[in-house]
Amino acid sequence: MSGGYETDTVTRLETNLDDSSPEILGATMDKLFAAGALDVWFTPIHMKKNRPATMLSVLCEPSHVETLAGVIFRETSAFGLRTEQIVRLKLGRRFETVATEYGEVTVKLGLKGGEVVQVAPEFESCRAVSEKSGQSLRAIYEAATRSWSCR
Amino acid sequence: MSGGYETDTVTRLETNLDDSSPEILGATMDKLFAAGALDVWFTPIHMKKNRPATMLSVLCEPSHVETLAGVIFRETSAFGLRTEQIVRLKLGRRFETVATEYGEVTVKLGLKGGEVVQVAPEFESCRAVSEKSGQSLRAIYEAATRSWSCR
Amino acid sequence: MSGGYETDTVTRLETNLDDSSPEILGATMDKLFAAGALDVWFTPIHMKKNRPATMLSVLCEPSHVETLAGVIFRETSAFGLRTEQIVRLKLGRRFETVATEYGEVTVKLGLKGGEVVQVAPEFESCRAVSEKSGQSLRAIYEAATRSWSCR
Amino acid sequence: MSGGYETDTVTRLETNLDDSSPEILGATMDKLFAAGALDVWFTPIHMKKNRPATMLSVLCEPSHVETLAGVIFRETSAFGLRTEQIVRLKLGRRFETVATEYGEVTVKLGLKGGEVVQVAPEFESCRAVSEKSGQSLRAIYEAATRSWSCR
Amino acid sequence: MSGGYETDTVTRLETNLDDSSPEILGATMDKLFAAGALDVWFTPIHMKKNRPATMLSVLCEPSHVETLAGVIFRETSAFGLRTEQIVRLKLGRRFETVATEYGEVTVKLGLKGGEVVQVAPEFESCRAVSEKSGQSLRAIYEAATRSWSCR
Amino acid sequence: MSGGYETDTVTRLETNLDDSSPEILGATMDKLFAAGALDVWFTPIHMKKNRPATMLSVLCEPSHVETLAGVIFRETSAFGLRTEQIVRLKLGRRFETVATEYGEVTVKLGLKGGEVVQVAPEFESCRAVSEKSGQSLRAIYEAATRSWSCR
Repeated sequence: MSGGYETDTVTRLETNLDDSSPEILGATMDKLFAAGALDVWFTPIHMKKNRPATMLSVLCEPSHVETLAGVIFRETSAFGLRTEQIVRLKLGRRFETVATEYGEVTVKLGLKGGEVVQVAPEFESCRAVSEKSGQSLRAIYEAATRSWSCR
Repeated sequence: MSGGYETDTVTRLETNLDDSSPEILGATMDKLFAAGALDVWFTPIHMKKNRPATMLSVLCEPSHVETLAGVIFRETSAFGLRTEQIVRLKLGRRFETVATEYGEVTVKLGLKGGEVVQVAPEFESCRAVSEKSGQSLRAIYEAATRSWSCR
Repeated sequence: MSGGYETDTVTRLETNLDDSSPEILGATMDKLFAAGALDVWFTPIHMKKNRPATMLSVLCEPSHVETLAGVIFRETSAFGLRTEQIVRLKLGRRFETVATEYGEVTVKLGLKGGEVVQVAPEFESCRAVSEKSGQSLRAIYEAATRSWSCR
Repeated sequence: MSGGYETDTVTRLETNLDDSSPEILGATMDKLFAAGALDVWFTPIHMKKNRPATMLSVLCEPSHVETLAGVIFRETSAFGLRTEQIVRLKLGRRFETVATEYGEVTVKLGLKGGEVVQVAPEFESCRAVSEKSGQSLRAIYEAATRSWSCR
Repeated sequence: MSGGYETDTVTRLETNLDDSSPEILGATMDKLFAAGALDVWFTPIHMKKNRPATMLSVLCEPSHVETLAGVIFRETSAFGLRTEQIVRLKLGRRFETVATEYGEVTVKLGLKGGEVVQVAPEFESCRAVSEKSGQSLRAIYEAATRSWSCR
Repeated sequence: MSGGYETDTVTRLETNLDDSSPEILGATMDKLFAAGALDVWFTPIHMKKNRPATMLSVLCEPSHVETLAGVIFRETSAFGLRTEQIVRLKLGRRFETVATEYGEVTVKLGLKGGEVVQVAPEFESCRAVSEKSGQSLRAIYEAATRSWSCR
């Protein structure tokens, strides 16, 4: 099934960590992105012996598994990793610039079969405009959304 | 392996959402069930840049993927979805009615190789009897469980 | 307001831990109960710098604060504790024994103004009967609840 | 401190539940709102003996404590409740109606010292327009926000 | 890809539980380990009808699926289980003993291609030394880590 | 009760957010720290209408309430805040420098009645040494802890 979506296959790495401190894990997230991870996230889990633990999940290109596994084994207390192949359905992506009363903002567009079905002001672009203009981040998002829909 | 269980293959759709408000997500859950999802749930996750985000998971028949993906891309801020094929082991299901001192209640039975191994008062049935009788929902569950075991 | 409830005042200790491993925290829970805590629990929280951290909460008699604070500072990485006084509304408690087809089970009763308003099979008693009889824990709970309501 | 904010004092009721099923708790939330609760929410907590439990929190007028405590003791397995008095800082609230291309939507305004500092499309109003128009809920929110800012 | 890691294939069992009490689930975790599970954990999830539910996850050898499924269907309210095959990347494991000022402690070593890349004081060994010596668990972990690195 | 601890009184601000996106909340955390918050954290909560929401908690000096409330009302969708006064028990703090094989690291000491009862390598200092030396963050923590205990 693709139905106008783009598809690819990525690897999900997962490990349950009950012997790493949150300080270390926060820094590990940065190192995984720096090493090429597509996405990294934590889920609170409840492990044996009353341990309030954390599941680390990483999404990556299959070619990056060895590098990212190396980061995880080096930075965290993991002794093992689970690996799964995942098929993704994706919108095509295109970036455009819109003018707002506070400055130019980048907008990320999601396309299906050539048609725009998703519009999202781009975070870093909004943050930069928020800081320069002194407006709240929400105000910039709303201005960018409004500007796009009136273009 | 089946060992007396029924089996089927379903699809799990997942996406990490860091740009949708909880109000929207709550309503999206309803729309996914209305569009044929077998189950829908949220998991709290921790994404990059300190975002207290939500993972949306949907279980569905493989034939419903396109419809449900459409709902997700339309109602949420997702730009992509992960899809996995999952084999389920299931008990057979049968519904029976039991009499309680507060009214009749439907009971859902789980069967393995023809034998009843799971008994659960059915929620909506208990809720209806709770509202009509003014008894607590717990009282109805207990009465139904008791009535089944003494039948 | 008391309205038939018993009341008392207890202290809640809380601290956000972003530098303790879950292994240590699980063992700390046991030590806190051993040192007289009334209740201990963990809540998953999301702290600065992407740390998937844990809030430790302890409920205790005001006279136990010094002892329990000592355990926390000794076993975890805490540098500070928040303390709050909390008024509790409580049911009176009484324990009774009921006979079931699998053996005798202790039942905890909750009373308001002398009237039984809450009935709960006692966990350790059910677990002991479950282990001796080979029945599931659920079966013991249901048998005890049934036995109480038919007494 | 008030600084242009409205203030009031409310009561927070809390209890840790390790012996109630989620089905019961979901229905209890509805009953608490029906009995006058200002807000009700669940927090996942980790209790002793490896119990993946739930903290129930209720915010209410002090005059409603007795009624709501009654609902909690009746519907859940609680044997006690924690009560705290909380001072709230609040924006003043006013509702207005805005026209959108999909129909009229109610907007909730937050005021500080007479000035509008918060604008939020009202959920049920948006949902009704979404259902009637067939547009996504997000599209209605965006249209209402846009309409307000261009008014 | 193995790159010096050991690999194996295990099964993950998962089920969403909205009708089991946390008391039962905590005891079920113990029964699953006793029946041969490699790992067991709980994740807080948010299911339909406002249910603050729990996902139970079990990792096991494929040959144990039938036994462990039996435990789950018997002890919890599950009517179905999801099963997935997972490839694991693992460090080799070796245990050594180190002397500390508080007594001997077992240390778990993780090896990749014969080289030690992970060192973790073993929990139960540390706990025993902590109890005998009266030192905090953290102190034992630190002493063991120090002893290993100075060996 | 102080028993050798330092004490102070701080304010906790809390609000339940069901209409703010995680992207906005992550950026709000930064803005609250920049405006003088002592601590900021998120807790996953489950609100009415199936909303997977977030509780924002801020700890601050009572004199900062007005400023921080302003940030919250400006950056998030909050219409109200809960405020509570909290007494903290704290260890005294002192910073020292230790030499490690990878470079100098700052260590934070916690004191009770003049005695050192808590030792924690300081995160940013460890991170800087980790980056410069190419060693894992864990290795730096362990080296600093070892260096302190052998000083």
